[in-house]
Amino acid sequence: MSPTDLHVVVPAGGSGTRLWPLSRAANPKFLHALTGTDRSLLQATFDRLEPLSTPERLLVVTGVAHATSVARQLPELPERNILVEPFARDSCAAIALAAAVIEERAPGAVMASFAADHLITDTRAFQEVVGHAVEGAAEGLLMTIGITPTRPETGYGYLRCSEPARPGVRQAVLEFREKPTAEVAAEYLGSGSYLWNASMFLWRTDVFLAELAARRPDVHDPVREIARAWDTERQEAVLGQLWPTVPKVAVEYAVMEPAAAEGLVATVPGDFGWHDIGDFETVGELLGREVEGARIVEVGPQGAPVLVVDGTGVIAVSCAPRVIATLGVRDLIVVDTQDAVLVCHRDRAQDIKRLTELLRERGHTAHV
Amino acid sequence: MSPTDLHVVVPAGGSGTRLWPLSRAANPKFLHALTGTDRSLLQATFDRLEPLSTPERLLVVTGVAHATSVARQLPELPERNILVEPFARDSCAAIALAAAVIEERAPGAVMASFAADHLITDTRAFQEVVGHAVEGAAEGLLMTIGITPTRPETGYGYLRCSEPARPGVRQAVLEFREKPTAEVAAEYLGSGSYLWNASMFLWRTDVFLAELAARRPDVHDPVREIARAWDTERQEAVLGQLWPTVPKVAVEYAVMEPAAAEGLVATVPGDFGWHDIGDFETVGELLGREVEGARIVEVGPQGAPVLVVDGTGVIAVSCAPRVIATLGVRDLIVVDTQDAVLVCHRDRAQDIKRLTELLRERGHTAHV
Repeated sequence: MSPTDLHVVVPAGGSGTRLWPLSRAANPKFLHALTGTDRSLLQATFDRLEPLSTPERLLVVTGVAHATSVARQLPELPERNILVEPFARDSCAAIALAAAVIEERAPGAVMASFAADHLITDTRAFQEVVGHAVEGAAEGLLMTIGITPTRPETGYGYLRCSEPARPGVRQAVLEFREKPTAEVAAEYLGSGSYLWNASMFLWRTDVFLAELAARRPDVHDPVREIARAWDTERQEAVLGQLWPTVPKVAVEYAVMEPAAAEGLVATVPGDFGWHDIGDFETVGELLGREVEGARIVEVGPQGAPVLVVDGTGVIAVSCAPRVIATLGVRDLIVVDTQDAVLVCHRDRAQDIKRLTELLRERGHTAHV
Repeated sequence: MSPTDLHVVVPAGGSGTRLWPLSRAANPKFLHALTGTDRSLLQATFDRLEPLSTPERLLVVTGVAHATSVARQLPELPERNILVEPFARDSCAAIALAAAVIEERAPGAVMASFAADHLITDTRAFQEVVGHAVEGAAEGLLMTIGITPTRPETGYGYLRCSEPARPGVRQAVLEFREKPTAEVAAEYLGSGSYLWNASMFLWRTDVFLAELAARRPDVHDPVREIARAWDTERQEAVLGQLWPTVPKVAVEYAVMEPAAAEGLVATVPGDFGWHDIGDFETVGELLGREVEGARIVEVGPQGAPVLVVDGTGVIAVSCAPRVIATLGVRDLIVVDTQDAVLVCHRDRAQDIKRLTELLRERGHTAHV
């Protein structure tokens, strides 16, 4: 197949609560320029994928709250390729909807799905790995691209492979594993046979939909019916009627795990500078500049200085044209936005979600 | 004398750099509602002093940058009682100007001078002590009101008295002492003969001006000439010509210390809940409410919550309608204002001035 025959799907959802107050339910991280350039994560994802496909074959699945932002950030994307979910139904529904719509438009197409909020530094290596994975997908496998782990990360799920991973060499995936403990993560890293699951999937739409039909008809049947009405005047009515009936389930759990157990899943390990922009530690590491013992990250409109005096281990994220000044503090994350400021110990960066929960509980939904 | 014969002077200057970013050169602390009510420190000072005098006998000495704010915050104050310095010339010049203007308007009057940015909780006790001090001033002494110390404070100057202080009982001041070390401050507290110098002075204007003429003619002579032109059409010309020649010196150094050495200074010790709103520790202690292990202070427009989760020893000062959220931090001062946010270890609260110096050095004068 020619590379431009590939259909690409980008599920753009999730509010990124570990990046609050930068990332918001109404303005999530994929819309922010967390890329080191003025392009948003979503735009950088588009830039990376567009050469693998064409705008006509690239679909974004997103929620009603973000449809207009997606449309404006990606003016090259045809409107009919922005699939808007009335409300979130987890990853299986989102990916299945895209697969079913593609199947209607181009039966038996190879599709690939990539998150909207990941950063990849080596685009050439990425494209090469995708090329290998496309071959497996065309042969009828459910393909993933697994990331060669560089540390015993406890924040990601893992793929267990049949043998130690070699970049670019396809092999079977035996199991999907949830986020491990630190001890287990260290074992995974040592064994060499585990890869990070970056939710990168490639398959023929007919193969995936057949697997889905066999395992989860409760997802498959309404989604196929919605897809048949898509691009017609019946779209809204059918979507409104059937979408609420679609169960919320992750695609790993619904399809990939059982399929792996039956030997239908393979992976191509990749090593192309992949980063999940999931927390402020990563934001500081990737996008910060070292100033006076601190990592300073500037996102969006600037115009006032960030001062760190006698600080160590400070990550300061400036998202508004205001002064941030710290004096004599250590191991803190300070994030300043237009309407909220966060001061968090670095040891607690994974618990920021607790703050958004509290804000919701107390009725301050505008700030979540 | 009747209490309303007293003339009262309020020097309203200084930028309060230890309260940055709340206090600014252009919007200093005395203009802020750091009183637990919606009255500013200046307004609360006026409210406290007005019963001791009348608005016609109350003068505010301030700088050009704050004259309009003073005029608007104190609409009861006659315009001619706002003495505007073209630029700051330290406390001796400010107080001497007021004394000389009062001497022109009411020769031999008793005047009292009180800072614009102090808080006093027991107004009745304060007024009683002032009454005692007025008696000494009428007799021709240079009077001070010394504050009975409650802790070995290193942030204030001290008065050394002739004997252990008894509230309300007048006695001689032997010496003015600069801010002491912690060790020396503990000695002072133990001896009982030291009082805090709160820069509260009372004297007959003719007595003070004669002392000033004898000791500092370089201050006295131009100030008297300016005062003679005050309230006339020559005011601006004479002020513009002579004010730049007035030396910068503190009134304690220029007059009170040498006068004390000659037995001309006395004090009435006072104990009326006096507080210098000088740093965020004091602001937190006096104006904060205890919430979730933190002292939360709200100044000015509010509308968004302050969340302190798993925090200890946090002082959070909210001066803007924005969320402040802290997670897992201890012993921090967090101050949020419209255009700047400060995160400072409590051990470093006395060094905040360093930040304003840095901002000036780097040209960010709008934020100082």
